Amino acid sequence: MASASAFIVPDCSSSSTAASRFIPLNKIRIRRVFQINYHPISAVRWGPKSSLLNININNRRLFSSMALTVASNAETIAKVIDGKSVAKHIKEEISTEITRMKEAIGVIPGLAVVLVGDRKDSATYVRNKKKACDDVGIKSYEIHLPEDSTEQEVLKYISEFNDDPSVHGILVQLPLPRHMNEENILSAVSIEKDVDGFHPLNIGRLAMRGREPMFVPCTPKGCIVLLYRYGVTIKGKRAVVIGRSNIVGMPAALLLQREDATVTIVHSRTKNPEEIVRQADIVISAAGQPNMVRGSWIKPGAVIIDVGINPVDDPESPRGYRLVGDVCYEEACQVASAITPVPGGVGPMTIAMLLSNTLSSAKRAHNFE
Amino acid sequence: MASASAFIVPDCSSSSTAASRFIPLNKIRIRRVFQINYHPISAVRWGPKSSLLNININNRRLFSSMALTVASNAETIAKVIDGKSVAKHIKEEISTEITRMKEAIGVIPGLAVVLVGDRKDSATYVRNKKKACDDVGIKSYEIHLPEDSTEQEVLKYISEFNDDPSVHGILVQLPLPRHMNEENILSAVSIEKDVDGFHPLNIGRLAMRGREPMFVPCTPKGCIVLLYRYGVTIKGKRAVVIGRSNIVGMPAALLLQREDATVTIVHSRTKNPEEIVRQADIVISAAGQPNMVRGSWIKPGAVIIDVGINPVDDPESPRGYRLVGDVCYEEACQVASAITPVPGGVGPMTIAMLLSNTLSSAKRAHNFE
Repeated sequence: MASASAFIVPDCSSSSTAASRFIPLNKIRIRRVFQINYHPISAVRWGPKSSLLNININNRRLFSSMALTVASNAETIAKVIDGKSVAKHIKEEISTEITRMKEAIGVIPGLAVVLVGDRKDSATYVRNKKKACDDVGIKSYEIHLPEDSTEQEVLKYISEFNDDPSVHGILVQLPLPRHMNEENILSAVSIEKDVDGFHPLNIGRLAMRGREPMFVPCTPKGCIVLLYRYGVTIKGKRAVVIGRSNIVGMPAALLLQREDATVTIVHSRTKNPEEIVRQADIVISAAGQPNMVRGSWIKPGAVIIDVGINPVDDPESPRGYRLVGDVCYEEACQVASAITPVPGGVGPMTIAMLLSNTLSSAKRAHNFE
Repeated sequence: MASASAFIVPDCSSSSTAASRFIPLNKIRIRRVFQINYHPISAVRWGPKSSLLNININNRRLFSSMALTVASNAETIAKVIDGKSVAKHIKEEISTEITRMKEAIGVIPGLAVVLVGDRKDSATYVRNKKKACDDVGIKSYEIHLPEDSTEQEVLKYISEFNDDPSVHGILVQLPLPRHMNEENILSAVSIEKDVDGFHPLNIGRLAMRGREPMFVPCTPKGCIVLLYRYGVTIKGKRAVVIGRSNIVGMPAALLLQREDATVTIVHSRTKNPEEIVRQADIVISAAGQPNMVRGSWIKPGAVIIDVGINPVDDPESPRGYRLVGDVCYEEACQVASAITPVPGGVGPMTIAMLLSNTLSSAKRAHNFE
C-alpha cells in the first residue's frame, strides 16, 4: 500500500472535486473519535442490546473464539479493517459449528442457488458461493436455467426448494433476465429460507422496533460485524450511509439505526454530500462510484466501511483494470481512524454472512443451539 | 394565537435548554428556504415521481378539487399549516367518492375496529373514528372485547373480518392489554385490509425502492399530504424526523426518503439533537416531549410538522390541562416559514388518512377507479 504524502494522489484525482483538490490533508488536525483496539473477545459488546447479533448472527460462540492479527499500516494513520482475515475466521467458526451439528443431530445445512442466464459475473459469483459452501461443509444445490426460461419455470424450482427439508437457504442470483419480475420471484422464496434477507417481510421487521427479522441481508450484516469485531462503538454515534439500494444502503442504515446510531442516508439527490459525510463518526459507502469520497470529506478519526467494488482502467494490470472502492483509500487513510481496503474489506464478509445465515437457518429448522 | 416578541415565552420555558435560552430569536436572520404558496391544484406536484400519492393516496381527484383558504397569521412570520381545514376538505372529497362508488357499483366501504379493554382514551379514539366513518359514508363495525379476553378470541374476530367481503379495512386499537402479543395480533390482519399500514410486509415495501406498500401508516401519510398540499418541495431537501416509533417516526422517515429528501432520524440516543435539527429544511417531530424543540433549534425558513400532542398542566383551562406539541410554537413561528399548530395540525389528518386508506382498499377490492 503506497503512502500518500501529497494531498493529491494519482489514484483518486480522476474523481476529485474542486473542493477536495484544494484542501491539503496535512492541514487537517487528526483527532481520534474511536479507540480502535483488537481484543478479539472483550472488545466486542455482547450485551442484551445486541439483539441483532444474538438473533441473526445466531451464535456467540461463532464470534468469540477468533484471535485476529490486525495488519498495521506503518505508513498511514488509519488502521486497516481486514475483512479477509475476519471472514476467514468466521468461516472456520462456521465449519466447526457445522461439524458439531452433524455429529449431534446428523443434519448438514443446505443452500440452493438459482442462476438464470449466462452472465459471466453471475456465474463467477455462484461458483465462489459454491466453493465457500464446500469449504465449510454446507451442501450446495445449483439450478442453472437458460436466459429464455419463463418466470413459471423459475418459480417451479423455488417452490421445490421451499418444500425440500434438506435445503435451508435459497438464493436467487441477481440480476434476473429483464423479462422476469424480480419482485414476484424473490417473494416466492419461503421467508424461512430467505438467507439473502431480501424478502419485504424481513426488511419490514428490520425497520421495526421490537421485531426481529429471520435473516439480515449479507453485505450490510458484514459491515456491522466488522464494526463489532473491531470494537467500534455504534450507539450514539453519527453514521452516514452513502447509497440507498435495497441490498446494501437501506438495510445498512436500518441496522445502524437498530444499534442506536443517528443515521443519515446520502444519495444521488443529496445536494451537499461532502458536508454531511464530514459529520459522520461512521461512514458506510455503497455508492458504486470509484474514489468518490475524498479525504476532505472525512471527519478526522472516523471509521470507514467501503462497500464499493468498482473496476477502473489500469494498463499496468494484466487484466487491464483494477478494483477500487467508493472511498479514495490513500487520502482516507490519513484522516480516518480505521478503514476497510478494497478488495479485502467488505467483499469477503458477504459470502461469510451468507454461510452464517444458512447455518442459522438450519439450526432454527432443527431447533439446534 | 399570541405573538412572542421576547425570546423566552412562558409557554416553552419549562422545557428550555441552556443553549436555547440564550439565543435571542431576533438575532437570527430569517431566510426563506421555501416559497410557501397555496394554489390548491398547481402547487401540488403530481408528476410520475409521486408514486406514493398516486398509489396510496389513491385518487388524484380526491386531492385536486379543494380550494383552501389558508389562515394567515399577521403577528408571526410562519404560515400556519391548517391540518383541520385540509382534513375537512379531504373528508368531503372522500364522501363524494364514496357516493360515486355506491352509485356506480353499489359498494359501500366498511371499516372494522377491534377494541379490547376499557381504556378511556382508546374508547374516545374509537368513537371519533366511528363518527368520522359516519360523516363520509363508510360503514363501521365495532367489536368491543373485555380486558381479560384471550388472544385467541381477538384472533377469531380478526379472522372473521378478514373473510368478510363487506369489511375493507381492519383496525386494532392499540395499546392491547399486556397479556396479548401485539405482533401476533397485528400480523393476523390480512395485508389487503391493513389500513393502519402497520404490517411488516407493508413497512418492508415502504422501505424498498421499486416496491409499493398496500397502505401507508395514517399519521406519517398525513404529514406528507400536508407538505404536498402546501406546495412544499421535498426532493433534495434535508429532512429531520425526531422520534423513531413504528407508527410515526420510522415510516415518516421512509416516506421522506421515497420523496428524495436526505433524511436523518434523531432519537433519544442522539447526542446533539439541536445541531442536527438546525440543519433541516423540513422537520417532522414525533417525540412526545412537550415544547422540546425550541426556536433556536430551527433553521430559518424551515417547514415544521409537529406530530406531538402532549398534555401539560394548565390551571386556567377548564380541564386542568391543555395540549401542546413537541415544538415550542410561539418561538418556532418566528423562525420557520410554515408550521402545523397543535391541536389542529397533524391530528385531524390521521383520521382523514384512515378514511382515505379504507376507501382505497374498497376501490382496490372491487377494481373501481
